[in-house]
Amino acid sequence: MDSSHPDTVELDATGDLIDLWRAVCDAPSVSGDETALADAVERVLRGCAHLEVLRDGDAIVARTHLGRPHRVVVAGHLDTVPLTDPPNLPTRMEGEGEDAVLWGRGTVDMKGGLTVQLALAVELTDPVVDVTWVFYDHEEVEAELNGLGRLVRHHPELLHGDFAILGEATNAGIEGGCKGTLRVEVTTTGVAAHSGRPWMGTNAIHAAAEVLARLDAYEAREVDVEGLVYREGMSAVRISGGIAGNVVPDRCTVTVNYRFAPDKALDEAISHTRELFDGFDVVVTDAAPGARPGLDAPLAQDFAAAVERLTGVEPAAKQGWTDVARFSTLGVPAVNFGPGDPLLAHKDDEHCPVSDVRTCHAALRAWLTGAPADA
Amino acid sequence: MDSSHPDTVELDATGDLIDLWRAVCDAPSVSGDETALADAVERVLRGCAHLEVLRDGDAIVARTHLGRPHRVVVAGHLDTVPLTDPPNLPTRMEGEGEDAVLWGRGTVDMKGGLTVQLALAVELTDPVVDVTWVFYDHEEVEAELNGLGRLVRHHPELLHGDFAILGEATNAGIEGGCKGTLRVEVTTTGVAAHSGRPWMGTNAIHAAAEVLARLDAYEAREVDVEGLVYREGMSAVRISGGIAGNVVPDRCTVTVNYRFAPDKALDEAISHTRELFDGFDVVVTDAAPGARPGLDAPLAQDFAAAVERLTGVEPAAKQGWTDVARFSTLGVPAVNFGPGDPLLAHKDDEHCPVSDVRTCHAALRAWLTGAPADA
Repeated sequence: MDSSHPDTVELDATGDLIDLWRAVCDAPSVSGDETALADAVERVLRGCAHLEVLRDGDAIVARTHLGRPHRVVVAGHLDTVPLTDPPNLPTRMEGEGEDAVLWGRGTVDMKGGLTVQLALAVELTDPVVDVTWVFYDHEEVEAELNGLGRLVRHHPELLHGDFAILGEATNAGIEGGCKGTLRVEVTTTGVAAHSGRPWMGTNAIHAAAEVLARLDAYEAREVDVEGLVYREGMSAVRISGGIAGNVVPDRCTVTVNYRFAPDKALDEAISHTRELFDGFDVVVTDAAPGARPGLDAPLAQDFAAAVERLTGVEPAAKQGWTDVARFSTLGVPAVNFGPGDPLLAHKDDEHCPVSDVRTCHAALRAWLTGAPADA
Repeated sequence: MDSSHPDTVELDATGDLIDLWRAVCDAPSVSGDETALADAVERVLRGCAHLEVLRDGDAIVARTHLGRPHRVVVAGHLDTVPLTDPPNLPTRMEGEGEDAVLWGRGTVDMKGGLTVQLALAVELTDPVVDVTWVFYDHEEVEAELNGLGRLVRHHPELLHGDFAILGEATNAGIEGGCKGTLRVEVTTTGVAAHSGRPWMGTNAIHAAAEVLARLDAYEAREVDVEGLVYREGMSAVRISGGIAGNVVPDRCTVTVNYRFAPDKALDEAISHTRELFDGFDVVVTDAAPGARPGLDAPLAQDFAAAVERLTGVEPAAKQGWTDVARFSTLGVPAVNFGPGDPLLAHKDDEHCPVSDVRTCHAALRAWLTGAPADA
């Protein structure tokens, strides 16, 4: 059996939280291969009489219908980036007790947050707000494949709510909003020729020197939005060009990823990028707007206060792009709140303290049940 | 049947020269797929009582043993670069009579020269010199696969001679020597990070800006060697870097092809290239020395005079790398002499005048039979 395509995953969502976390991590679910994990999550949720469950592809939505005045959406993605080589799964636990740390793919991004929401979805039969629990696929790949985006297109009513919490890694603090992301292809063209007579052609790779020079010289902004500081970035993420070992190439393409502060609309980000690469062919291949922090919403302030009571940590800016932007677009204020250091997301040495998972579980549980957060 | 892999090729080497040329061109033989054409050439040569024939892989050597005081090697490669899309075969004839031009892959590089040597190998049962006719594979790919190089390793004695003529395209004039070719990979390294937090990493593609800037600013030399002017070239032929659309890449590789004048030894060319990319990781992946013109050899001078009598054209420098360098390394003076404009080699619009093929055939036939070249 190919370990990256488990046939069947079994999850016990009523037992020990950390055992559940390990089981969720140890079921590899690289983008496009989430089905086995999604099946397991669906089985667990369909076993809960207090939840209405709907599945769309490998996304699952489970809702309470308690007639509460407010509805909160809690969402997380099932997929991870590819494993390392050799594979960084199954997970490995280092240390003990409060110092224990779990190592492996997904421990940070974002099977900790996912585990917290799965455990609470099963446990909380009577929360003080109605809750919509969303588990979705294809977050780590092109925006057009994103399972949350697909849910918005197929079942927008399922994502309605007064506030949303996304379980992306935040070191168990609240991170508000997110930067936008724009991907463009900057292409240089030339004239192919035999490399024995390069003067008969024009080398498109040489012409890309200017594209890379502008990237290398680019000074990224730091932007204060509603008191949170977002740091931008303009990065080449791919370059390709070349026909054969003896041919002057007539085409070279640099893929650039611009991460922009949420004070900037998507079209402004596109204009800014086109200006930077003025004189070159620029094609937008992928784009998603940022999200302003959204901490002025009453439920957001209430949740932030609850978390701060438990952890002493104030909200900060989210530097990565996350799907809170999709909720922002739907008019639902949303924050990130999940275990793990976001700087370790996608890294070979991805690892997360057990205590982060317990903290997030306790804070979210307390707030959703109306108990004082420090109880 | 896949037209790029003909099962059987039939050649009539005793009929019309231009019909033979078309048949040779219309048998696709992209590097690695030369077998069908090699089989056909072998069958033709084995039908000649005056030739001793040996085959090694898809290379064929056919020799006369007439006890002449001198031996001349006439060589050409069977393979071509890939066809265009849609394919530029079968060939298409445009114009008529002396103005006719044949279009399609291989018409220039180098099935014209190959046809001339095949026709003469069959016809010339009694040349004034002993002749070694060499047909070989894998010229258009990495040097280590080159069929002539393999013959040198397996059967060096078969390539001995006092003079060699390679039928590469020269517009039916003599082109002396050839430039050397060196291929290196220049690699930049960095530190991978999520592109949402690029300041946590170091972008290897941005670091390649300096590599491309040096290439773009490079001023190639023109070098006079024994009266022939060689023009050098330093070209990026490939660039690649990138891990995923949201990852700052930790590695970027530029493949550079240096074509250097034959006044420079291979190790000097390597030193020059390392100096140009000082500060970067440089790995040599492919290298072949150049060849000085070699026109001081008596047989070379005699052949040059014969060609000049027929065409009025003096010898010039060969700008491309050709396998004359392999003969040069063996101590056999060698020149290029073949139909077609070398500037059209590997081009989508490859085409060659019928008159070039007839001229090369007439000049080589006249010289090998001792008849006055303008007879």
